[in-house]
Amino acid sequence: MNIKVGIIGATGHTGEVLIELLLNHPQVLITHLYNSGKSSSGAQVISDVFPKFKNRCDLICKKPDWAEIKRDCDLIFLALPHTVSMKFAPKLLSLGKKVIDLSADYRLKNTVVFEKFYKAPHQDKTNLKTATYGLPELNRAKIKTAELLANPGCYPTCAILSLAPLLALNLVEPDSIIIDAKSGVSGAGKKLENDFLFSEIQGDFRAYKVNVHQHAPEINQLLSKLSGKKVEVTFVPHLLPIERGILETIYVKKNPRAKLKMKNLVELYKKFYKGEPFIRIKPEGVFPRIKDVAKTNFCDIGIKDFGQSIIIIGVIDNLLKGASSQAVQNMNIMYKLPETAGLL
Amino acid sequence: MNIKVGIIGATGHTGEVLIELLLNHPQVLITHLYNSGKSSSGAQVISDVFPKFKNRCDLICKKPDWAEIKRDCDLIFLALPHTVSMKFAPKLLSLGKKVIDLSADYRLKNTVVFEKFYKAPHQDKTNLKTATYGLPELNRAKIKTAELLANPGCYPTCAILSLAPLLALNLVEPDSIIIDAKSGVSGAGKKLENDFLFSEIQGDFRAYKVNVHQHAPEINQLLSKLSGKKVEVTFVPHLLPIERGILETIYVKKNPRAKLKMKNLVELYKKFYKGEPFIRIKPEGVFPRIKDVAKTNFCDIGIKDFGQSIIIIGVIDNLLKGASSQAVQNMNIMYKLPETAGLL
Amino acid sequence: MNIKVGIIGATGHTGEVLIELLLNHPQVLITHLYNSGKSSSGAQVISDVFPKFKNRCDLICKKPDWAEIKRDCDLIFLALPHTVSMKFAPKLLSLGKKVIDLSADYRLKNTVVFEKFYKAPHQDKTNLKTATYGLPELNRAKIKTAELLANPGCYPTCAILSLAPLLALNLVEPDSIIIDAKSGVSGAGKKLENDFLFSEIQGDFRAYKVNVHQHAPEINQLLSKLSGKKVEVTFVPHLLPIERGILETIYVKKNPRAKLKMKNLVELYKKFYKGEPFIRIKPEGVFPRIKDVAKTNFCDIGIKDFGQSIIIIGVIDNLLKGASSQAVQNMNIMYKLPETAGLL
Amino acid sequence: MNIKVGIIGATGHTGEVLIELLLNHPQVLITHLYNSGKSSSGAQVISDVFPKFKNRCDLICKKPDWAEIKRDCDLIFLALPHTVSMKFAPKLLSLGKKVIDLSADYRLKNTVVFEKFYKAPHQDKTNLKTATYGLPELNRAKIKTAELLANPGCYPTCAILSLAPLLALNLVEPDSIIIDAKSGVSGAGKKLENDFLFSEIQGDFRAYKVNVHQHAPEINQLLSKLSGKKVEVTFVPHLLPIERGILETIYVKKNPRAKLKMKNLVELYKKFYKGEPFIRIKPEGVFPRIKDVAKTNFCDIGIKDFGQSIIIIGVIDNLLKGASSQAVQNMNIMYKLPETAGLL
Repeated sequence: MNIKVGIIGATGHTGEVLIELLLNHPQVLITHLYNSGKSSSGAQVISDVFPKFKNRCDLICKKPDWAEIKRDCDLIFLALPHTVSMKFAPKLLSLGKKVIDLSADYRLKNTVVFEKFYKAPHQDKTNLKTATYGLPELNRAKIKTAELLANPGCYPTCAILSLAPLLALNLVEPDSIIIDAKSGVSGAGKKLENDFLFSEIQGDFRAYKVNVHQHAPEINQLLSKLSGKKVEVTFVPHLLPIERGILETIYVKKNPRAKLKMKNLVELYKKFYKGEPFIRIKPEGVFPRIKDVAKTNFCDIGIKDFGQSIIIIGVIDNLLKGASSQAVQNMNIMYKLPETAGLL
Repeated sequence: MNIKVGIIGATGHTGEVLIELLLNHPQVLITHLYNSGKSSSGAQVISDVFPKFKNRCDLICKKPDWAEIKRDCDLIFLALPHTVSMKFAPKLLSLGKKVIDLSADYRLKNTVVFEKFYKAPHQDKTNLKTATYGLPELNRAKIKTAELLANPGCYPTCAILSLAPLLALNLVEPDSIIIDAKSGVSGAGKKLENDFLFSEIQGDFRAYKVNVHQHAPEINQLLSKLSGKKVEVTFVPHLLPIERGILETIYVKKNPRAKLKMKNLVELYKKFYKGEPFIRIKPEGVFPRIKDVAKTNFCDIGIKDFGQSIIIIGVIDNLLKGASSQAVQNMNIMYKLPETAGLL
Repeated sequence: MNIKVGIIGATGHTGEVLIELLLNHPQVLITHLYNSGKSSSGAQVISDVFPKFKNRCDLICKKPDWAEIKRDCDLIFLALPHTVSMKFAPKLLSLGKKVIDLSADYRLKNTVVFEKFYKAPHQDKTNLKTATYGLPELNRAKIKTAELLANPGCYPTCAILSLAPLLALNLVEPDSIIIDAKSGVSGAGKKLENDFLFSEIQGDFRAYKVNVHQHAPEINQLLSKLSGKKVEVTFVPHLLPIERGILETIYVKKNPRAKLKMKNLVELYKKFYKGEPFIRIKPEGVFPRIKDVAKTNFCDIGIKDFGQSIIIIGVIDNLLKGASSQAVQNMNIMYKLPETAGLL
Repeated sequence: MNIKVGIIGATGHTGEVLIELLLNHPQVLITHLYNSGKSSSGAQVISDVFPKFKNRCDLICKKPDWAEIKRDCDLIFLALPHTVSMKFAPKLLSLGKKVIDLSADYRLKNTVVFEKFYKAPHQDKTNLKTATYGLPELNRAKIKTAELLANPGCYPTCAILSLAPLLALNLVEPDSIIIDAKSGVSGAGKKLENDFLFSEIQGDFRAYKVNVHQHAPEINQLLSKLSGKKVEVTFVPHLLPIERGILETIYVKKNPRAKLKMKNLVELYKKFYKGEPFIRIKPEGVFPRIKDVAKTNFCDIGIKDFGQSIIIIGVIDNLLKGASSQAVQNMNIMYKLPETAGLL
């Protein structure tokens, strides 16, 4: 069986990486590539946009064509900017297509929070209610039957996976969590802004959106659900002079009322993630680096107990586990394929 | 007046930068360059080691010659590895020379702590007692009369300057301080180790010595003295894929018993550092980046109040304010020169 | 059918990339990993050396075991330094194993030239005579039956493919060829030398081995054979501050006695390489960049006619088409697999 | 004496570097900073544009004010885009001000060539005739009395200095010169174009304007004048993934009729540039790298004789000797200051 797949938003970073992954997937056929329909560049051969695809994928990327989609696609990936996806999803769902949305549009259940952070009213509250948050390690059962899947943000993927065992077991003070996050520039998408020029990034390092980043509420929503308590993290993202990868250094205070029953935290994490194909826990005293996971769908986690506090370091490739390959992992689950198909 | 200066350890990173600075200093004459005497490479013309100095400084760098030093130097900079400086300082002091040591050998007053972190017994406890810690913004009066000056570490310079106003005024919980530090690779000196190969650094980012770095006790010593309370920081350094620069993101809890009398923290910092030529406080809501201070002796600081907690971000050039230019600033103070001579 | 493969020299750059490729190859099983037997590090789990392989390949890399190889391997890749491979190949061949050698040991037919450039006597002249040069686009027929395959050098792969159509058709002056080559640092392998430290490479660019590089005779040997004339190129390699990729800018004078029968050079190149799955010719006036081929087995070529002279620019990924993926392409040919298996 | 200096175009790359240099110059006072008057951003404090200048230079950068210039400036630097400078120079000259133009507007004497390469008619042919080409090593006498100085292009500075001794002495075939040039991205100025995003430059390398770059005619004009023969070079520039620096690898055929009277080429170059403070010739067999000259006004040159051909490699910092510091060197000459003032 081949899943027939279309991508809307094929010319951005996550679109580019999706094409790469799906070309290597043994059970997928990319049938069509689309832009957002607002692109000033019109129809383009995708291998003119990305010459590396020449002779591998020479489809035309054009504005979305509903009849074509109805006829030729089982599943649509939306690799669009935030607030744009929600203009496409309802129609696609009404055509009976499955949708995996890589934007933030269906992640936050609270539309007041969405509107505060994404500066736009939510236009599809109906589907928002039933959308499934696509973090396989925590939500696999629901993903299996999802019609509209909200693929998680890059920072939240790394943060939630790094913290889930502690929060699920009530081992930390929920108001003590500090996430010092560092990301490569591809996390910002392909913005033609002065800030992303080579001369501005190379040799530099800086924080941005200090404790006001839109991924904080996504992390809070998931961790609160997981722990049953209101979690509000301190979250400071920084921009690394590299193309890809996220590393998050996380500081938490232990819950003095909790008793850790495991011999140690590394064992606890290993047990929590037992059988997970894409989570790797580092041995005691070892912390992961970005190079360990670059170009892969893995999330590697190191953890160390410092008495009253714990330090956790998690790493992912922001364009893969933080976006496109996690979307493929979700597709594999939705279509009952081996979860690692096309990813290992 | 020209100060006649010698450098021992001229072929390392800090030596190289010192030469550069002193060549541009209007009142300094570099009379001699020395290696540690253990170098396998023997005597070398410094412009063969660093071709950029050709025609600007073509002195021979050789093993130290005490008679020559006695005759030709007023001041010696020790740009040597830790545990090596203390083999040279006593002799130099006995010759009546002033010494500025860029290593860690005379920074930590507690030799038990020194020996734990630097893995070697302290061999010069006598001079350690009288050595002056060379952070001009906090210790200018004593620096003026120093004979043996311990130039601060790079991470401590940034951390202490970023935190000093809060600690001096007792505004934060002393056990709440978390310093998430990021440094360019030159901070490690010129080590020929696999970890510092281009292929290992480029495109990567990683933590190291997580909460066990030797600069933590230096920070603790200074902050404890400043606040009159025992301070023990959480300190996690990371390695950036850039050559130069440190950025530290610092998280503190406010002291609930303290009353902030200033309208805001930015004002408080500006007042604390009033008149300091090399400290710049960012306006409310703005945080500094490494590019702001690269190739300068400045320390730029941004600070923001988040209710119960405060986030401070400090940046310096680790080879300059974190090492060689701070050493020159200290020299200027010791010789009653304008403090900015050769530095602005 | 699965080919059972062993790698000797698994911990170097080309070994690492080979493992990555072979893990993704649908018809290969890696049975054993070996070091050169001289490694001071002894036996190591490969995923301790390269943590990114954790849970994907956790074989032990140890010193070669002939009995094991005899029993468990059909084919051995030698990913060893120059002058080391020739110590292993004879024994492997005598055991009836096929050998693909990624070093230079079996490339140069003239042992005098070999010994001049590689500073060591050739120790296996018998097998050297019958070794097959593994450039599929020019030598596919012989590769099919090869027992000992000499995988081409990275610079020669790019140079020969960029020049072959002109030389084969006698269109250029054979003594006019200037190859200005630029390579990422991985081309040098994993050498722990001062020259390859991050601080030496980052922000720098330099030529090395100006017109005396060991790849020049390899290029000369192939181009001379192709053209039937003695070709001696001018070859200047440079070191780029990037991890991977080669770009060669090539300048030639036209042969005034030759008549170009094609409408233009782009057409001529397209015809020459018709059907080649890994050669892509750029349209008139467009030149390739390293990004077009990074992480792929492609060689992209741009060419432009300037009247009396021609400029050709070729690009490859030095670790892939310039080493490991070309070795896999050769393996595919030797085993009658689809030539693109595991590579597209 | 202090020279009172204004800069028009202060917010670009060369403006930024000029400010840095002039702040350190012992005999210069920057009186005013201007933009081109067309800037959409209006008046800006320069230290808001470049925070690193905070407390060092906090002048306002605004649209040019002729009355102010007349009153407060001896000399104006034009750090403007090509075709913009020629709108300002005539007025400034008419006010009796000296002008140093860092753009290309007054470099090419042939306006037909200018108009072909810069796509605009020349609007100031009168002053073009008398403008002085500011390459001190070849034109010092005329620079002393220049009123309008055309500061050379970055590629031409490096190419001409690298070739001048050979051309002046008629030692090479004038039609054989091939210049393979590589530049850091700052050479392109501060363009907000997709091509200059970090994600496009990092890890990549590419040629551009292959043999059609606007600096070729500038090189040809100077070399033709120097040799008394029509020189037409082959010139291929490439973009390096670094911020600053140019390296040019130059290939020439020897003139078979010329007799080299010097023992060798290195000696010949040393003699030709004897006494030049900013030219350094490498010893026999050694070639310069970008790191040797980064952040300096030096041009370093290596040269090697290969029998019938010669290879020369020259390096400069494109923003310094290739632009702003060469402009300061010219200023020093024009004002009879020590030529190295503010530059060593």
